[in-house]
Amino acid sequence: MEADVTEGLDIDVLAWGARAKARCDALGLPPYSEVEGQLTRRFLTPAHAAALTTLSEWMAAAGMSVRRDAAANLIGRYEGETPGAKALIIGSHIDSVRNGGRYDGPLGIMLGVDVVEALHRAGRRLPFAIEVVAFGDEEGSRFPASMSCSRAIVGSLDPSALAMKDADGVSVAQALAAFGGDPDAIAAAARRPEDVLAFLEAHIEQGPVLEAEGLALGVVTAIAAQKRLMVRIEGVAGHAGTTPMALRNDPAPAAAEAMLALERICRAGADGLVGTVGRMTALPGAFNVIPGAVEFSMDIRAETSATRDAAVEAVTAEIQAIADRRGLRAEITLMQVLAESPCDPSLMGLLEESLSDLSLPARRLPSGAGHDAMVMADLCPVAMLFIRCEGGISHNPAEAVSEADCALAAQAMLHFIDKLERRERA
Amino acid sequence: MEADVTEGLDIDVLAWGARAKARCDALGLPPYSEVEGQLTRRFLTPAHAAALTTLSEWMAAAGMSVRRDAAANLIGRYEGETPGAKALIIGSHIDSVRNGGRYDGPLGIMLGVDVVEALHRAGRRLPFAIEVVAFGDEEGSRFPASMSCSRAIVGSLDPSALAMKDADGVSVAQALAAFGGDPDAIAAAARRPEDVLAFLEAHIEQGPVLEAEGLALGVVTAIAAQKRLMVRIEGVAGHAGTTPMALRNDPAPAAAEAMLALERICRAGADGLVGTVGRMTALPGAFNVIPGAVEFSMDIRAETSATRDAAVEAVTAEIQAIADRRGLRAEITLMQVLAESPCDPSLMGLLEESLSDLSLPARRLPSGAGHDAMVMADLCPVAMLFIRCEGGISHNPAEAVSEADCALAAQAMLHFIDKLERRERA
Repeated sequence: MEADVTEGLDIDVLAWGARAKARCDALGLPPYSEVEGQLTRRFLTPAHAAALTTLSEWMAAAGMSVRRDAAANLIGRYEGETPGAKALIIGSHIDSVRNGGRYDGPLGIMLGVDVVEALHRAGRRLPFAIEVVAFGDEEGSRFPASMSCSRAIVGSLDPSALAMKDADGVSVAQALAAFGGDPDAIAAAARRPEDVLAFLEAHIEQGPVLEAEGLALGVVTAIAAQKRLMVRIEGVAGHAGTTPMALRNDPAPAAAEAMLALERICRAGADGLVGTVGRMTALPGAFNVIPGAVEFSMDIRAETSATRDAAVEAVTAEIQAIADRRGLRAEITLMQVLAESPCDPSLMGLLEESLSDLSLPARRLPSGAGHDAMVMADLCPVAMLFIRCEGGISHNPAEAVSEADCALAAQAMLHFIDKLERRERA
Repeated sequence: MEADVTEGLDIDVLAWGARAKARCDALGLPPYSEVEGQLTRRFLTPAHAAALTTLSEWMAAAGMSVRRDAAANLIGRYEGETPGAKALIIGSHIDSVRNGGRYDGPLGIMLGVDVVEALHRAGRRLPFAIEVVAFGDEEGSRFPASMSCSRAIVGSLDPSALAMKDADGVSVAQALAAFGGDPDAIAAAARRPEDVLAFLEAHIEQGPVLEAEGLALGVVTAIAAQKRLMVRIEGVAGHAGTTPMALRNDPAPAAAEAMLALERICRAGADGLVGTVGRMTALPGAFNVIPGAVEFSMDIRAETSATRDAAVEAVTAEIQAIADRRGLRAEITLMQVLAESPCDPSLMGLLEESLSDLSLPARRLPSGAGHDAMVMADLCPVAMLFIRCEGGISHNPAEAVSEADCALAAQAMLHFIDKLERRERA
């Protein structure tokens, strides 16, 4: 185990873990929420603006120069030894879902501010700059698009995204202009790859793995590949009382067999394979009518597209076989495809070493949820640090993390920066 | 095989089968339907009144004296040898579901008119009267109650049913008064058991059994016992991407196992046991959320309450075992119970002999659907004759019967009356 990199830094990491958490809590109510008594902070709302104003002060107090870009990203920069050096970007998102939790997003930003403040107080400059970014739109809870802020930084934002409207008919472009952004200058928000060293995102796990294994932190291997499918199995509607079992073409038990096939295939799979039936409907949906059709959704994810696709193929074949055997017709529609977004192996190695320094097992796990990091991977190498959350719960006011875990995350990030410094100097 | 009872009667049964069907068709459009281009004839509507007016003329032409009772039943009476003799009541309902078929109900009335007309033309009087009744409210398509007209005849109509309101806020009592009925005199519509010999209802099968077996007619053994249950299986909602298969408490595959258990138990059952899942919902119902709960309906029917209840117990036990094994909580709520309503064994025997006289196999089968006959069983012995319908389809404009099957039904009913006459004279 190496020496504690926090030696010589004017910080009390335990207290700082409490502070990062407390700052998230402080942003959990109006004016930082649109709604009294809950946290709803959607993209380009007054609640978003209020959060950026306060966060700007915290960034400045941490020794950063602060600016907003044309896409409403708030960016604090802690200069390196050489002005204009490549930057390690640390960040996450400041927006929330409706009635969400306080840590999904903001915690990664607050921890970034903390580590910069630690370096700043110690007067330490690195061979690279550190920028802390608050993305404004990871959740997509206001407009149909999501992750438009990180896409703007990467330079991959589709201009059509600016025309998308919220439920009140306000477009992203209109809202952005009113917010002080500049929809016409979105391209200027894009960073050049030669100016960016890496991206590090700390985020609550939003799942139960770390808690189940008694671990505070985890090293993300990849953001999972995902396919969303809708399955429709058609039979023949009939009277529930007058149609004998032997004369039915009932899609309901066929759908049941299909759901169990999905579960069996995913349980047997590797690479973090998961499959979920989140929606199901029988049509016409009456107590006394054998359904004419049953529709259900399948969400299938794995660390690799190959594993995901093998599962999709296997379950598709099973559903067709079930339908054939029962004299039914099955139709499977692909609704959404997301490729996997692997984290950088070298940076994963540095994160693992950082956890080892803290005597923590370096648990590797995929992220089943999407994050800005998967967008940033198109710009630079990315790393993600997962923080244990209570019950695996997120997108819910019950979302919770411990101060001790936050403190460990801050320490791990400082170790990571230390190792990155050594690598860069070598 | 006995002599043809239609010998000496001035009828051409094949032509009469065509006429009964044609009369149903004639009542399939406005003014006999509330809606242009479809058949919607609900209780106490102008369409109902128009149908009764025309039906009155057909009854009178068949030799019947016609009256309406206080509950809006239309009753044609063909007197027996002795005035005031006990009556064989033949009938079914004149109302329809919204956008329904033309034969579900009316066909049984038209066939009753035909057999009376045949006797009338032959100048034949029986030791009992025959009454043909058009019940007004079997489907319950206007008011929350159903079968209120046959209940009024039986004397079992709950007075609270008169206070029930339709979607426009009109009560049964108000609508009945406007129709020319008398809500205050409902009790007068009740028949004394000593005035009623038996009840015979001819009705389309509303199921596929007779068609599948190539049979025109069937003898109903009983109207099935029924239970409706709602099943709720509760687990733990979670993120579809971040919760590994092994850490899920997912109610969806548990519900799937339960649905297959219901199918397996009912397939293995006797006494016409059937089980149907007509509704299913996953909550909250998002693509990317493991459901916190799944709810689905079970409609379970059999010829006997004992068989039905054994199935309900078996599937309840299986669902509890599935939930226990998966760490979930299952809750099963009984929504509705209907006891079986057996047909009279002696009358079933007469119907079977009638079919044999026509060289037809006397297929016995239960009725999975409810009928006025199950209400009438509280007043007198009942018999039901099922008529093959195309594809087992009902409650749908595609409902269809053949003229030949209608003619066979009319012949079978005449044979039945002939046998009942011999029994009464003996």
